[in-house]
Amino acid sequence: MEQKKVGIVGLGLMGGSLSLALQAVTSEYRFIGLDHNQQHTKEALACGLVDEIVDSLDAISQCDIILLTIPVDAIIAIAKQLKGLQPHTTIIDLGSTKEKISTSIPSTIRHHFVTAHPMTGTEQSGPKSALSSLYKDKVVVLCDMQKSGEVQRQVAQRLFEQLQMKLVFMDAKSHDRHAAFISHMPHALSYSLANAVMLQEEKESIVALAGGGFRDMSRIAKSSPTMWEDIFRQNRENLLEAIDAFEQELQTCKRLVAQEEWEALNSWMQRANKLHEIL
Amino acid sequence: MEQKKVGIVGLGLMGGSLSLALQAVTSEYRFIGLDHNQQHTKEALACGLVDEIVDSLDAISQCDIILLTIPVDAIIAIAKQLKGLQPHTTIIDLGSTKEKISTSIPSTIRHHFVTAHPMTGTEQSGPKSALSSLYKDKVVVLCDMQKSGEVQRQVAQRLFEQLQMKLVFMDAKSHDRHAAFISHMPHALSYSLANAVMLQEEKESIVALAGGGFRDMSRIAKSSPTMWEDIFRQNRENLLEAIDAFEQELQTCKRLVAQEEWEALNSWMQRANKLHEIL
Repeated sequence: MEQKKVGIVGLGLMGGSLSLALQAVTSEYRFIGLDHNQQHTKEALACGLVDEIVDSLDAISQCDIILLTIPVDAIIAIAKQLKGLQPHTTIIDLGSTKEKISTSIPSTIRHHFVTAHPMTGTEQSGPKSALSSLYKDKVVVLCDMQKSGEVQRQVAQRLFEQLQMKLVFMDAKSHDRHAAFISHMPHALSYSLANAVMLQEEKESIVALAGGGFRDMSRIAKSSPTMWEDIFRQNRENLLEAIDAFEQELQTCKRLVAQEEWEALNSWMQRANKLHEIL
Repeated sequence: MEQKKVGIVGLGLMGGSLSLALQAVTSEYRFIGLDHNQQHTKEALACGLVDEIVDSLDAISQCDIILLTIPVDAIIAIAKQLKGLQPHTTIIDLGSTKEKISTSIPSTIRHHFVTAHPMTGTEQSGPKSALSSLYKDKVVVLCDMQKSGEVQRQVAQRLFEQLQMKLVFMDAKSHDRHAAFISHMPHALSYSLANAVMLQEEKESIVALAGGGFRDMSRIAKSSPTMWEDIFRQNRENLLEAIDAFEQELQTCKRLVAQEEWEALNSWMQRANKLHEIL
């Protein structure tokens, strides 16, 4: 059987891990990579993330499946440059915000697109950080699927099932709002925490006193600024609203501590404990 | 060789894990437990955390080593009730704040005390959550050691070395300030995050969209309110100052996003990335 060609634009953690995970379960795909970072293309070849590197979008346009694992603005820019797609060509973007992508893709090619958000990642980036286990058992949110073609929906769903992911369907606008609260705002907190602590504390004290709590709370402050600047930009309004909602809770905490209302503080903490029932 | 008697007051995660960890490396200790919670004493016996349960402090007072794994106010209250200590009796408290303990212990018995803070824990509590691996390779901060007797210092250091912990020495006042920034304030953030998200989001969305970031950031919001109310009370001023420092960073983030100063936001995130060099 001839291998299907999978073009990956953006050879980082997400794109690289996708290739490794698919290679682990099937040999039906051949992987073709494109990245403007020469170091990354070398590493991707060396780590076996792709079979071949190309340097133009023409070669990518001819692939059966095109994975766009790059920032949101780059996804939109690249989408407008893809030419000569075959009827079955399936373009899957993994942008962290979905509404702008869903509405910005030219209508002539919109049905080729399946716009997806896998709820996974690490604080690492680049081809060397790729993990074959990154997607397994994780959720992928598929947005505005009514805008995708029938063939494209099937191809994408099959691919995410091969990755052993759990499929969740949502409209792009809801996705962005939920993601602001559950993913993006927590990143703003982690960056703020890391900056506040490093401003106040010596390295030695941080190393000595950092228990599991601080390590967990500050881990995502190590995430790529390039990627997260883009996400914050794309989801600006939802993010600001989510930060406001967080600040109200922190204000409550501060007030209860300042006014020594310990019973009310305990109840407020008990309310947070309800998370035990959810996660 | 006759076993040394170790009395544990407070049969929860910390006390229970200490017993399991010591039992795993030596048979030189016999463990005697006291807890006002009858369910916990039963579970502690059933889980093999202690050899014997007693119901009065008299039996604990006669132990060679006394571990106080209870909240700070309880540590201070119990300290005043311990009677008839032997010259070598070593009392180790694991309270999360240290200055009040260090200065509140009656001077007649202060030299018996070694006041320690192991930088470890989980979001679980109670005897069933005890783990033999909880202390291994973790830091224990030993405070104001000049106030402890020579024998007591040696006994405590040997015990923490048996637990394979890394010993860090600090004055109690500095400890409390560092702990506010590196441990206590992050708990306030996690509780606030959990409350903000559960107020805004349905359970289904949280389950669907929670990636590793949110799971890590919200994990310690599951911590015991009884324990953390006490810690916030004991370290109130340092905690409020640490929250203020955090808020300044979050305000910076919010301002840069609101005013669309993306380059400055990227630099601010890069500053947080320096944590890579520390942890």
